[in-house]
Amino acid sequence: MTDDDAMTDDGADRNEAPFSPAEHAELALLLEVAGTPKPGNVDRRRDFADLRFEHFLAGAVGARRGLDLAADGAPVGEAFERAVAGMAERQRGGNTQFGCLLLLVPLVRAADEGNLTPEGAADVAESTTVEDAVGFYRAFEHANVTVGDPPEGADDLDVRRGGEAIPALRKRELTLYGVMELSADRDGNAREWIGGFRRTFGAAEAILADDGPVLDRAARAFLTLLAEEPDTLVATQHGDAVAEAVSRRAAEARGDPDAVAALADDLVADGHNPGTTADVTAAALFVALERGVPV
Amino acid sequence: MTDDDAMTDDGADRNEAPFSPAEHAELALLLEVAGTPKPGNVDRRRDFADLRFEHFLAGAVGARRGLDLAADGAPVGEAFERAVAGMAERQRGGNTQFGCLLLLVPLVRAADEGNLTPEGAADVAESTTVEDAVGFYRAFEHANVTVGDPPEGADDLDVRRGGEAIPALRKRELTLYGVMELSADRDGNAREWIGGFRRTFGAAEAILADDGPVLDRAARAFLTLLAEEPDTLVATQHGDAVAEAVSRRAAEARGDPDAVAALADDLVADGHNPGTTADVTAAALFVALERGVPV
Repeated sequence: MTDDDAMTDDGADRNEAPFSPAEHAELALLLEVAGTPKPGNVDRRRDFADLRFEHFLAGAVGARRGLDLAADGAPVGEAFERAVAGMAERQRGGNTQFGCLLLLVPLVRAADEGNLTPEGAADVAESTTVEDAVGFYRAFEHANVTVGDPPEGADDLDVRRGGEAIPALRKRELTLYGVMELSADRDGNAREWIGGFRRTFGAAEAILADDGPVLDRAARAFLTLLAEEPDTLVATQHGDAVAEAVSRRAAEARGDPDAVAALADDLVADGHNPGTTADVTAAALFVALERGVPV
Repeated sequence: MTDDDAMTDDGADRNEAPFSPAEHAELALLLEVAGTPKPGNVDRRRDFADLRFEHFLAGAVGARRGLDLAADGAPVGEAFERAVAGMAERQRGGNTQFGCLLLLVPLVRAADEGNLTPEGAADVAESTTVEDAVGFYRAFEHANVTVGDPPEGADDLDVRRGGEAIPALRKRELTLYGVMELSADRDGNAREWIGGFRRTFGAAEAILADDGPVLDRAARAFLTLLAEEPDTLVATQHGDAVAEAVSRRAAEARGDPDAVAALADDLVADGHNPGTTADVTAAALFVALERGVPV
C-alpha cells in the first residue's frame, strides 16, 4: 500500500504530537549515516568490509533506549551508557555511533530542559558529576572505540581500561566534564563538550539555511566541517599531517561532485575515516531537526 | 570515534537486554527500505521524485510509538492508528509504511504474547474487535493510501471515507478481521491477515536459511515473493495483466543482477510499484529478526 502521493502541507492538519527529542536524535543518527557522499565514512551508497550500513540502522534503533532515558531527565552518564549498550546489542559491526551519542545525549537533555542552545548545552555539560564519568567509562565496555593515549600522568584514567578506571575517577573526583577537559586538545567531541557545542550549532544553522533534500544538506554539512578543521579521529589514527591533508582536499573538493567522489574513493582506499566529523554532523542534524528542518 | 573493528562474538559477553519486538519491528522497517535492489520501490540506492529514502527513515522512527503500544498489549487498531500517525508526522513523503505496519502490528502483538507463529498471529487477527476496525479506518486520515474500490454493496465501508465510515462499521458490527475478509480477494495484506500470515512466515524462513548480509537477503526475499505472486498494489493501480507480467519478469530475472537492474529501471519508468510485496518483505524481516537472523 505504498504510493508516491506527497503531502502538500507542512503538518498543519495533523493531529499527532510532534517528534520528541529522543525521536529526533534517533532520526539524526539515521540521516547522518544515510547522507551521501560522506567521504571516508559508511553512507547510503558505501559499506566497509566489516562495517556496513545495516549495522548503523540497528545501532540507531538500539541507541533509542538511552536517548529515551536522556529525554526523560536521566543523568547523562547513565543515559549514554544505555545508548551505547543498545547500539551494540543487535549488530556485529561493533562501534557505529559511540561518538555521535556522546554529543547527542547532552543535547537531548538540553532539549528536554527547553534550552537547546549553546548555553543550555554547556549547562548540561558543566553540571555532570563523577557518576556521569563512571557511566561514560562503563560505556567503553560495550564497544571497541578507537581513542588516543591518555594525557601524561593519567594512565589510570585511560578509557580503554573501561570499568577498571572507576576507582581512579572517584579518587580524583573527576566529573564527565572534567574528563572531557582532559581530552579536548586531541578529541573533537570533547572539544564540543567543553566549548558549548560551537561547531554543532554552527553546522545546524548551515543545514537550516541550506536547501534541497535533508540528506544532501547533511552531506554538504559534513564536507564543510571536514574542510574547516582536521578530523581528530584521523589525527589519532594517522597523525596530524594526514588529518590536515584530508581537510585541505575536502576544502578543494567542495562543490565539485567528481572531486568529492574521488576524495571518497581515496579515503576508503587509504583507510582514513573522518569519524569525528560524522559525529558532529549527526549532532548538527539533531539541532536542525529540533529547529524544524523539513524531511 | 567510529572505527571498523568488528565484534568477534555473537553477543555472549554483552550485558544488555535483547531487542524487544517493537525494536525489531522498527529495525525491520529500516532494513526493508534499505534492501537493494528492490525493483519498483524506494531503496538504499533509489529515490522517487516525491518519495525519498529519508521519508522512510522518518516514517520508521515515528511508527515506533504505535509499535511500542502494540508490544505493551494495546489493542491492534489503536496501536496501528498511532503507528500510522507517527509515520506521517515528521516527513513529507506521505504514505511510506502503512501496509508494512498493517502486517507488523499484529505480529508484534503475537510476539508480545510469546507466540510468533502462524497460529499465534492468526489468533491475534481473529481476536480483533469493532474498535480495532475503527482504529484502522481512522488511520486512513493520516496518510493518502492507494486502495481499490470497496466490494459491491459496501460503499459505506470504503476506507477512503476514513472516520466517516465508522457508523457503518458499528452498525454492521464489523471487526478488523471482518474488514480484512472483505478485502482478501484483491489485497495481499488482507490475505496475510486472514491466512495466518502464510507468505510472511515462509519468506522469514527463506531469509533465515539464506546467507550473506541481511540487506542482500532482504532483496532476494522481495524478488522471490514478487516472482511467486502478482503484487496486489500493482494490480489495483494497473490491472491484473500488468501485475502478472511484472511477476513473470521477476521470476525470469532472479539470480541475474543485470536483469534485476533492468527490471528495476523499467518498473520505475512505468510507474509500477510492487508495494504490497515490500510490505510482506518487512513483515518477514521482523519474524526473521525475532528468530535471530544476524545483522
